[in-house]
Amino acid sequence: MDKREIKVMKKILNMNDNIAKELRQELAKENICLINLMSSPGSGKTTIMEKTAAELEKNICVIEGDIQTTLDAERIANAGIQTYQINTGPFGGDCHLESSWVKAAIAEMNITDTDIIFVENIGNLVCPAEFDVGAHVNAVVLSVTEGEDKPLKYPLAFRNSQLCVISKIDLLPYLDLDLDKLISNIKNINPKMEIITLSAKTMKGFSDWIDFLKK
Amino acid sequence: MDKREIKVMKKILNMNDNIAKELRQELAKENICLINLMSSPGSGKTTIMEKTAAELEKNICVIEGDIQTTLDAERIANAGIQTYQINTGPFGGDCHLESSWVKAAIAEMNITDTDIIFVENIGNLVCPAEFDVGAHVNAVVLSVTEGEDKPLKYPLAFRNSQLCVISKIDLLPYLDLDLDKLISNIKNINPKMEIITLSAKTMKGFSDWIDFLKK
Repeated sequence: MDKREIKVMKKILNMNDNIAKELRQELAKENICLINLMSSPGSGKTTIMEKTAAELEKNICVIEGDIQTTLDAERIANAGIQTYQINTGPFGGDCHLESSWVKAAIAEMNITDTDIIFVENIGNLVCPAEFDVGAHVNAVVLSVTEGEDKPLKYPLAFRNSQLCVISKIDLLPYLDLDLDKLISNIKNINPKMEIITLSAKTMKGFSDWIDFLKK
Repeated sequence: MDKREIKVMKKILNMNDNIAKELRQELAKENICLINLMSSPGSGKTTIMEKTAAELEKNICVIEGDIQTTLDAERIANAGIQTYQINTGPFGGDCHLESSWVKAAIAEMNITDTDIIFVENIGNLVCPAEFDVGAHVNAVVLSVTEGEDKPLKYPLAFRNSQLCVISKIDLLPYLDLDLDKLISNIKNINPKMEIITLSAKTMKGFSDWIDFLKK
């Protein structure tokens, strides 16, 4: 039975990868950059999106992935950004987004003149990393409250990303976190990772994120 | 193809539930309570376990679930507790524990005179909630840094648990969190949920957790 399960899973992954590849090419042709944000629940992705809307002089859209509720989408829409909510199911729905859903969401959005589409993936450091959603940039958002060891314990998300945003640095004075150790753990898993430290509350370091997006 | 996938998944879930039920009954006969701790990465489960070892006058064991590394198991073992590490796979391994693995781990442990076996499930608020590991008590650990909305966004973990431990309350002065709102969101999802607020750093509220375990 195990063998059969793996067979099915492989088929799904292949299909997902093919759609992701096509989507990435189609968006590149239209000069649209797709950025996939992955993190644990509560890392501050939505707050970062709200502040990005205010600070970045580019046209952005956000695709919100949640198992249920439209809470995050409402926050983003209130910040004046076009938002599309993907809910993966009422009770214990899918724990990740797939490229076909992202593609279907984009097809229903008005993306004329859009520069960047963000995907706020489902709050989960494990499963989203296994599914290519067609992004040009994969980013992990990691809050300083989560501890130094997370890159070692959830390596796939860090290995498959080009950028790590270390968030909530305003809390550093109240934590025992060793930031240098966290950064060295990230670099051990992915030596090429670009790392930005920021607080969306005090806005410290936020300009580094905005500069990254301008590129 | 979708239909086939669901069929396989259902079979696995049925098998998992049957093993979980048997395990729960076997442990009850031996007066051993199995407690399954579920949370996001970095909620403080391991620190709570370390402090519990020092404060609770009962014989406890811990089964550590991680995708990889034995970092948490080493911390628990250093606290003088018998620990069994389940690693679910080298790269992007399984995102939850299943009852058969917990059963196999217990079979290899010395559980004579044990009162409580804790399962530190994989750091993930989504998938572990879908798999009964055979526990008598399911508990969610939620750090105050994660925000008020998490019970609404990840309802299954809250619906399937009897206890919610709200951790890291020493950080409340530095956060915008509305604790009453968080508690009311938990109660909306699961009106019968027992709720304990604590800090494993300052030990505030920790005696409530110890009292819960003594029952």
